Amino acid sequence: MRNDLPHKAIIHETVLRDGIQNEEMIVPTEKKLQLIDHLVGCGIKRIEISSFVNPRLVPQMADAEELWSRIERKEGIIYSALVLGKKSLDRAIGCGVPHVGIFVSASETHSRKNSNRSISEAKEEALELIKRAKSSDMKVRAGVMNAFGCAYEGGIPPEKVMDLVRDFMGTEPDEICLADTSGMANPLQMHAMLACLKDITEEKPISLHLHNTRGLGLANVWEALRQGVTIFDTSLGGLGGCPFIPGARGNIATEDTVHMLCKIGIETGIDIDALIEESLYFEKVIGKEFPAMTSHLKHNKSSNI
Amino acid sequence: MRNDLPHKAIIHETVLRDGIQNEEMIVPTEKKLQLIDHLVGCGIKRIEISSFVNPRLVPQMADAEELWSRIERKEGIIYSALVLGKKSLDRAIGCGVPHVGIFVSASETHSRKNSNRSISEAKEEALELIKRAKSSDMKVRAGVMNAFGCAYEGGIPPEKVMDLVRDFMGTEPDEICLADTSGMANPLQMHAMLACLKDITEEKPISLHLHNTRGLGLANVWEALRQGVTIFDTSLGGLGGCPFIPGARGNIATEDTVHMLCKIGIETGIDIDALIEESLYFEKVIGKEFPAMTSHLKHNKSSNI
Repeated sequence: MRNDLPHKAIIHETVLRDGIQNEEMIVPTEKKLQLIDHLVGCGIKRIEISSFVNPRLVPQMADAEELWSRIERKEGIIYSALVLGKKSLDRAIGCGVPHVGIFVSASETHSRKNSNRSISEAKEEALELIKRAKSSDMKVRAGVMNAFGCAYEGGIPPEKVMDLVRDFMGTEPDEICLADTSGMANPLQMHAMLACLKDITEEKPISLHLHNTRGLGLANVWEALRQGVTIFDTSLGGLGGCPFIPGARGNIATEDTVHMLCKIGIETGIDIDALIEESLYFEKVIGKEFPAMTSHLKHNKSSNI
Repeated sequence: MRNDLPHKAIIHETVLRDGIQNEEMIVPTEKKLQLIDHLVGCGIKRIEISSFVNPRLVPQMADAEELWSRIERKEGIIYSALVLGKKSLDRAIGCGVPHVGIFVSASETHSRKNSNRSISEAKEEALELIKRAKSSDMKVRAGVMNAFGCAYEGGIPPEKVMDLVRDFMGTEPDEICLADTSGMANPLQMHAMLACLKDITEEKPISLHLHNTRGLGLANVWEALRQGVTIFDTSLGGLGGCPFIPGARGNIATEDTVHMLCKIGIETGIDIDALIEESLYFEKVIGKEFPAMTSHLKHNKSSNI
């Protein structure tokens, strides 16, 4: 069994984007810079710095330009941003962002609420964005939001997801990401979805953006690992949730995911004790208890984990 | 894949024992009786009513005799108790308890702290208890505590667990239960453990008592389902944790487990909406937010789950 699992996995840390975007307390730019620095110090290799959105809609992301101009870009670390439209990509290009995520929702209702476009319109725009990002020397991950269900629509037919992925593949993105935006995925569905997906993506890396809304986050990670997936979006402390999705809560927590990977012998290069310390510190910055579990054990030394 | 999974699963509800035993607020007997009634009304088929312990050590269980004399025993429902020693079994026999759990810890340190006996002494006693319970027409599940690790000792060699199970098998219990008392199990370990266990237990039913201490509860359930396990101890709201285990938190939540089973098409006979309502009500009785997730969605109707 152990030998059928991947030997390494990559954590794509998203606390600075999906994690805090919905928080009322605006995290000062200095604190964001410090957090980026510390997380990289813990061994995080991929980190989402911001999205480029209308600062009136998401005030937490208003300092995107300043952040990108001030982060110290270290070798071997992937600094990423989420891009949502033409202007957004212009801003990312202006900041010299090396890695972007471009997503389309598989739910018609969510697509209209999130981007004011039908799926078809959003997809056409996304394909243009991917091409332009690629020709600007960016690495691109193309993703499908609400791939496992939608809080507005309920079930989403997998064919809708696969159709989007097929279209993405024509633009040669560097990675395909499926996002369980509403935290509705279950491991049986994950099994089926990944089997279909791998037929389309072939050797292309697959990543998963999962939420723990119904407690199934790590069950889905486990099933995905069994299917060979090695890239997981996580958020420090399990903070997060889309502001346009009712009931969406917490991304899977970085420390809980890293703890699990560590226990089953999958290397991440991340120091779990340092990560837990950082999570507990950032909890004080935000001023509320995070949903992560491993950072809240009474005895939180790794020897006891 | 779907056809490789069980079609039905049994929830063994343990909120009235493991769930509340560590709570300061002593739940009035009337409230316990009401909860039993409501849970059975939700479709729960197996329910742990109490343990028989020293009321000075666990005041929450002091009304065991009264509870057993007053519950309305409905046909087709298994009412169960945890038994911890000779006197404890005497009390259970006196109450006409039809189904008991008898456990031995696989951790020497925990065994001494929990029962003031070495593993070997505790095992000899348990084997006698099982025989006596069986000859008193009780159904017995024989279990191993700390089967997946110990908060005091760390890893527990699987052979220690298997040795205990082998000895149990000689007394012909009705079921073998592995308890992840400290919430340390991971799904890779679950896979390996169940493979070994099934060689020993053959056709004997296996149950799992899991805690969600590190967020891996449902990942372990998923792996166990893949290995054919169909009986799971859960606690309403995810309440629970052994008072003698540092950092032990919450049993897997009944509603989260039932939700997952429902989503993957495994029948439990339980009405999830009624269960969530009951959890939210009992949360008010106890006076604190429970860790369960599905009962805390903003929109908690099953249509949205």
